[in-house]
Amino acid sequence: MTNHRIALIPGDGIGAEVLPPARRVLDVLGRRHGFGLTYTSYDWSCERYLRDGAMMPDDGLDLLRDKDAILLGAVGYPGVPDHVSLWGLLIPIRRAFRQYVNLRPIRVFDGVESPVRGARPEVVDFVVVRENVEGEYSEVGGRMNRGFADEMAVQEAVFTRAGVTRVLDHAFELATRRGGRLTSATKSNGIVHTMPFWDELVAERAARFPRVSWEQEHIDALAAKFVLAPGSFDVVVASNLFGDILSDLAAAVAGSIGIAPAANLNPERDFPSMFEPVHGSAPDIAGKGIANPLGAIWSAAMMLDHLGHPDAAEDITDAIAALLAGTAVRTRDLGGTATTAEFTEKLIELL
Amino acid sequence: MTNHRIALIPGDGIGAEVLPPARRVLDVLGRRHGFGLTYTSYDWSCERYLRDGAMMPDDGLDLLRDKDAILLGAVGYPGVPDHVSLWGLLIPIRRAFRQYVNLRPIRVFDGVESPVRGARPEVVDFVVVRENVEGEYSEVGGRMNRGFADEMAVQEAVFTRAGVTRVLDHAFELATRRGGRLTSATKSNGIVHTMPFWDELVAERAARFPRVSWEQEHIDALAAKFVLAPGSFDVVVASNLFGDILSDLAAAVAGSIGIAPAANLNPERDFPSMFEPVHGSAPDIAGKGIANPLGAIWSAAMMLDHLGHPDAAEDITDAIAALLAGTAVRTRDLGGTATTAEFTEKLIELL
Ligand SMILES: CC(C)[C@H](C(=O)O)[C@@H](O)C(=O)O
Ligand SMILES: CC(C)[C@H](C(=O)O)[C@@H](O)C(=O)O
Repeated sequence: MTNHRIALIPGDGIGAEVLPPARRVLDVLGRRHGFGLTYTSYDWSCERYLRDGAMMPDDGLDLLRDKDAILLGAVGYPGVPDHVSLWGLLIPIRRAFRQYVNLRPIRVFDGVESPVRGARPEVVDFVVVRENVEGEYSEVGGRMNRGFADEMAVQEAVFTRAGVTRVLDHAFELATRRGGRLTSATKSNGIVHTMPFWDELVAERAARFPRVSWEQEHIDALAAKFVLAPGSFDVVVASNLFGDILSDLAAAVAGSIGIAPAANLNPERDFPSMFEPVHGSAPDIAGKGIANPLGAIWSAAMMLDHLGHPDAAEDITDAIAALLAGTAVRTRDLGGTATTAEFTEKLIELL
Repeated sequence: MTNHRIALIPGDGIGAEVLPPARRVLDVLGRRHGFGLTYTSYDWSCERYLRDGAMMPDDGLDLLRDKDAILLGAVGYPGVPDHVSLWGLLIPIRRAFRQYVNLRPIRVFDGVESPVRGARPEVVDFVVVRENVEGEYSEVGGRMNRGFADEMAVQEAVFTRAGVTRVLDHAFELATRRGGRLTSATKSNGIVHTMPFWDELVAERAARFPRVSWEQEHIDALAAKFVLAPGSFDVVVASNLFGDILSDLAAAVAGSIGIAPAANLNPERDFPSMFEPVHGSAPDIAGKGIANPLGAIWSAAMMLDHLGHPDAAEDITDAIAALLAGTAVRTRDLGGTATTAEFTEKLIELL
């Protein structure tokens, strides 16, 4: 029996409340589809930072290196600056393990009302492919003349041919397997060095994927189009920052950030990939047992898909769809009163 | 009688179709409120670029310098790369005349259906204040190893204390005069050099505006909130790029990009300010006489406000509200069949 070694990092806030449900679901599917899962949990978090001065131990990345995948809850806590917590845990993992593709599927489920009128279940089904390790999120830059009138900060966005090409190819391949359409997010009218380069590479790679019809849109117009015509997308490919913005916006358009999953992929499988719900640590509802576990559970489904169990992954997304369409049980973010435990129980029943 | 010298730059596409209606409206108000307007038109455009190799003449900026305001239609044309057309006209004007505040009011008008369920007329009324001359839109950067495997492009975002402070102060002052609430767009969890600096300056300036209650939101969460809770904003202040994205998104949420106006302000009045509709040149409908003139007309209202005629400006926005709420006449983008001329006629009747 295949066995997969999974690292669990609950992290902060509701992170610790949504991972156990995901683990229960995973175990059900392991038994059904005949694979094993061994878990190792790590308490890396803002709490640890406040106690020990670091989000993870010095050899943290080495501890993860031999795992097959990482399932993460959420990172972030009031009192710990975000750039400390994230650059001390999430971002180093993405980078050390060359998880250069961030994949975020967007679906409107039957039974979930979207805040956007045009976002009906039949029409909205797309994927945002985000470049995940370079671009606007860069360590290059700094500050000078601190505290003086001539103080300034600079931040370098760095786009490499290799880095852009590999994520574009991933997106074009995905579009080939899906609906055959790709939208590239750009801003070559305002960002005049990196974005025209991005556009050139899109045109160059597109030539190798003749079955994909593609277009590009400036990020401002594209954000507007997510609201005006959310049904018009198949695969959307974007830089690190633009992908971050578009995927959160798309999750909102789809009806709940509490459901949206994300995969941080190292497609070559040289290193473990990481799976995490899009929602954050939500300190306002943490500890109350009312968090929506579906983001973590759908992320677990993406993990199974990556580990070679697409059927098991589909069982999960089918059960999520059935839960939302067929029952009135739902957590508070979806307009219901169910607890995390009740919602999970119902899902396991449907599995 | 006060006289104002106005530079008209119709630009490309529907730009030439929406400025004449704006001018008609301006003349009506000049007669009513007792001020004069003298216009000088400039044919600066992509057409000119294709003919003469430049968007505007060498002394273009000097020709504008003695004007009291600039009213611009739209810039951009298929076949002319956006970074050529915009960096050859729009961006140099913004920068040479230190128009460091870009102001974009967002209102949902009665009679216009928003694509977002929660965006009801009573609740959505806010202003996006965008930094307009520095930040992510920078000429600093470049490309190396062109065409080789190790090719790369870098782009520097530059934030200065002076540049950020002046736009923040403008936003805090506006919030003091309006509802007393300010939201700052940030991304200090991902953009680790410039955005923490931005946040520090927001906290520093906030201390001088005790009547304003403020908060900050990461751009990804904020974009989502524009869709989930569009009624929760008063003044939103953002960097050049974030403001660009948020203001287009907000215009979409408000029901029509065809109505949204923008002011590029030099608050010190050392130089002319520029007013322009948010919509682009829309080559697909150009020349058909069906463009929505309200974006240009509302921009003209913002111009009158800036020139010291707030009553005249209000006459215009009142007439726009009456037109949309009280009549069935509307252009195609608003679901009607009226031409630009018919729509303008009706508005003038209501004035
Ligand atoms: C055309 C483009 C350069 C411009 C911008 O991004 O500033 C436009 O989108 C705007 O918002 O005025
Ligand atoms: C927390 C933050 C650094 C992160 C990002 O922007 O990448 C998050 O928003 C995400 O999308 O995973």
